[in-house]
Amino acid sequence: MSDTLESVLASKRDAHLSQLIDLLRIPSVSTDPALRGEVRRAAEWLRDDLAGHGFETQLLETGGHPAVVARRHPHPGGPTVLIYGHYDVQPADPIDLWDSDPFEPVVKDGQIVARGASDDKGQVFAHVKGAQVLIEAEGELPLNVTFLIEGEEEIGSKNLAATLEKHKDLLAADVALVSDGAMLPGSVPTLTYGLKGLAYVELRVRTANRDLHSGGFGGGVPNAAMAVADIVSKLKDQNGRITVPGFYDDVQPVSDEERAQFERVPFDETAFREGIGVSATPGEAGFGLLERLWARPTLDVNGMGGGFQGDGSKTVIPAEAFAKISCRLVPNQDPERITDALVAHLHALAPEGAEVEVLRHAGGAWALSPLDGRAVQAAADAVRTVDGRDPVFVRTGGTIPVVADLQRLLSCEVVLVDMGLEEDRIHSPNEKFDVALFHRGVHLSAELLRSLARA
Amino acid sequence: MSDTLESVLASKRDAHLSQLIDLLRIPSVSTDPALRGEVRRAAEWLRDDLAGHGFETQLLETGGHPAVVARRHPHPGGPTVLIYGHYDVQPADPIDLWDSDPFEPVVKDGQIVARGASDDKGQVFAHVKGAQVLIEAEGELPLNVTFLIEGEEEIGSKNLAATLEKHKDLLAADVALVSDGAMLPGSVPTLTYGLKGLAYVELRVRTANRDLHSGGFGGGVPNAAMAVADIVSKLKDQNGRITVPGFYDDVQPVSDEERAQFERVPFDETAFREGIGVSATPGEAGFGLLERLWARPTLDVNGMGGGFQGDGSKTVIPAEAFAKISCRLVPNQDPERITDALVAHLHALAPEGAEVEVLRHAGGAWALSPLDGRAVQAAADAVRTVDGRDPVFVRTGGTIPVVADLQRLLSCEVVLVDMGLEEDRIHSPNEKFDVALFHRGVHLSAELLRSLARA
Repeated sequence: MSDTLESVLASKRDAHLSQLIDLLRIPSVSTDPALRGEVRRAAEWLRDDLAGHGFETQLLETGGHPAVVARRHPHPGGPTVLIYGHYDVQPADPIDLWDSDPFEPVVKDGQIVARGASDDKGQVFAHVKGAQVLIEAEGELPLNVTFLIEGEEEIGSKNLAATLEKHKDLLAADVALVSDGAMLPGSVPTLTYGLKGLAYVELRVRTANRDLHSGGFGGGVPNAAMAVADIVSKLKDQNGRITVPGFYDDVQPVSDEERAQFERVPFDETAFREGIGVSATPGEAGFGLLERLWARPTLDVNGMGGGFQGDGSKTVIPAEAFAKISCRLVPNQDPERITDALVAHLHALAPEGAEVEVLRHAGGAWALSPLDGRAVQAAADAVRTVDGRDPVFVRTGGTIPVVADLQRLLSCEVVLVDMGLEEDRIHSPNEKFDVALFHRGVHLSAELLRSLARA
Repeated sequence: MSDTLESVLASKRDAHLSQLIDLLRIPSVSTDPALRGEVRRAAEWLRDDLAGHGFETQLLETGGHPAVVARRHPHPGGPTVLIYGHYDVQPADPIDLWDSDPFEPVVKDGQIVARGASDDKGQVFAHVKGAQVLIEAEGELPLNVTFLIEGEEEIGSKNLAATLEKHKDLLAADVALVSDGAMLPGSVPTLTYGLKGLAYVELRVRTANRDLHSGGFGGGVPNAAMAVADIVSKLKDQNGRITVPGFYDDVQPVSDEERAQFERVPFDETAFREGIGVSATPGEAGFGLLERLWARPTLDVNGMGGGFQGDGSKTVIPAEAFAKISCRLVPNQDPERITDALVAHLHALAPEGAEVEVLRHAGGAWALSPLDGRAVQAAADAVRTVDGRDPVFVRTGGTIPVVADLQRLLSCEVVLVDMGLEEDRIHSPNEKFDVALFHRGVHLSAELLRSLARA
């Protein structure tokens, strides 16, 4: 770190924390219509803060809550980084379980406690301050920076894809950074470069016009619950391979380099098993656990039901049953194509007497940035500078449609630079953010801009 | 019919109906503690009516509601018939849906409407009057008759088996008659000579200490819902045969004579399918539909569930799931032995990572009287006399523990001589009994005693 950046960071610490507290005081709960004005006030607050540091700013009207866009592009034709975050927050309910007012932040034991402290005001604001600090320290940003801070993440980012599409030129970037999650346990610096996609359907089976008495009809009629069980049991073979025809056709294998990287991840399988109380980690034969979790497509039943659900016994033959079934997808599987194949397969597996209907629930695309690409490697350099150690590179089985949208619609490499911790109680009472990690985030953001400019 | 019996029947019609109305006025709802006194009053009413016709009577205290026992045994060493029924009734709720007071009987369009009219006061009282008419017409009963009319059938006959065991000598009989159900559609005279038994268990699977996010854990952990589906799908093979080891060992095959009898039953498979809206009648390969329904053991899932049960989608991997599983059993399968084998099989089928627990729910024994035995054949003779046509002989997949108890504890042949109709709305508002079928029941009961005496 240059002396200049270091001294600016040190001189601004108190101001940064105080400003974050001001931002956290605004109850920008996007799901509550009564707080619509407060949501907009948070957007205006961020817009004004960025405008005060020489960013060209605007509020993009989306049809819902506005998105803040702030651009400072001092290098025409040079590289551009887009920093994505959100200023809306979850509701504070159950309010009784908070130890302090969720919108009157308190700092206690090195933690700032407030709704939105970690998710995501604290993390996105660290980026805002990082850019400002760098401008102050060096007189100018080393590359073009665009902030996109939306107000609808907690209600599904429903207008984001359309906004990205409509303002493609305004938002064009080479790399996107997202900080809206948690590091690996132990504050291990974590860079996430891949997410899975999702296909989600609901199988519904009907076998009769009503539930039937098993004394009168047992042995002579189809059973909807057993039909669902039969279908579900055929979705994987004995090697744990998914039987949907064509399912693996577009799956991109993991390279030897990446697999070697997986092996360097400090992953404790025993702790993993004990933490969730599983006695085995079954899955697709021929692949290691981390590769299955991160880079192989999977299928799970998420809910299943039919017939008598109460305590005790009832001698009924269910006429209806269902299974909610979802697949996590990897590059280059297309969620639509996989959904089509899954729907056709479920129909094909229907046993005699079972009328099958399949509903489609919302899915999402995967996202993957090259491990050896400039975005990931520049982010790793910044981590080394700030933390004095190598980051851990991870993929996840989770799906974040925003990240896939950024990658797909802006054609940029996306890196997730998580600044929070698993124990931050996001979405829960007493949400908090470690004050030291907030300041570290400001520093990291400034170094990210530097290293991306060098890349 | 002898002229004497015919004329006595004719002269008593109004009195019989009027007496039945008196009995139906007593709100003997066995499940309602507030009506305990009324339940006993119904028992006393029946005891007094039978005592007035020369029966030795007593109320057997059972620990719950009393059972009426009335014996007239004029032929020491001669054959004895036990007539079983119950004087308790279902609650009248929902009371708003009755067109008239459930305990103030009305006769309308040839139907007597009241709670208990068909289930079972009307049917058991037809037997009471049948015996009395025969005494009046012929001066004495042609065989020994014992009535056993209990007051706890609608609450599971929980004290009946102990009562039968305790009073074995008092209740000893060669044949038992039970009239507590419905004839085949179209008032077809129906004799039921076989019932299935029941084994009922609940499979519970646990795979983790909590539901897990499919994004974080998909591909690396067991899924309780899929484990239940896998186990259930293996309970039958592709021929519809139940895979529980030893399951069929004690199954008594149907004789050629009985199978020929099945084929004479006026059973319309198309109507059967259309009535319940099934497109197929799958089952154990190599057996006809009626044989499967009546005389082959079966297995059904009665309820199944796990994971997310609400509308829409949730990306959770269920940690717990269940299936309620029951088997209908036939001679000579032992419910306990089958339950043991089923429990062991469910444990053996558990996939990797699935912790299996199996609960046992209450089961019941099968019952079967020989088709060519004296009870069934004598009953058929009585039907021919009264109705001028052959009865239809049926078995059912249902389980009536009382019938199995009578057969097992008293070692007697049991025949079900149903006098009601499917449309009698038993257990529902506006329960009714056809007045002509009540009078026919009195006549049939008298003829049953005659033909059993001849047998």
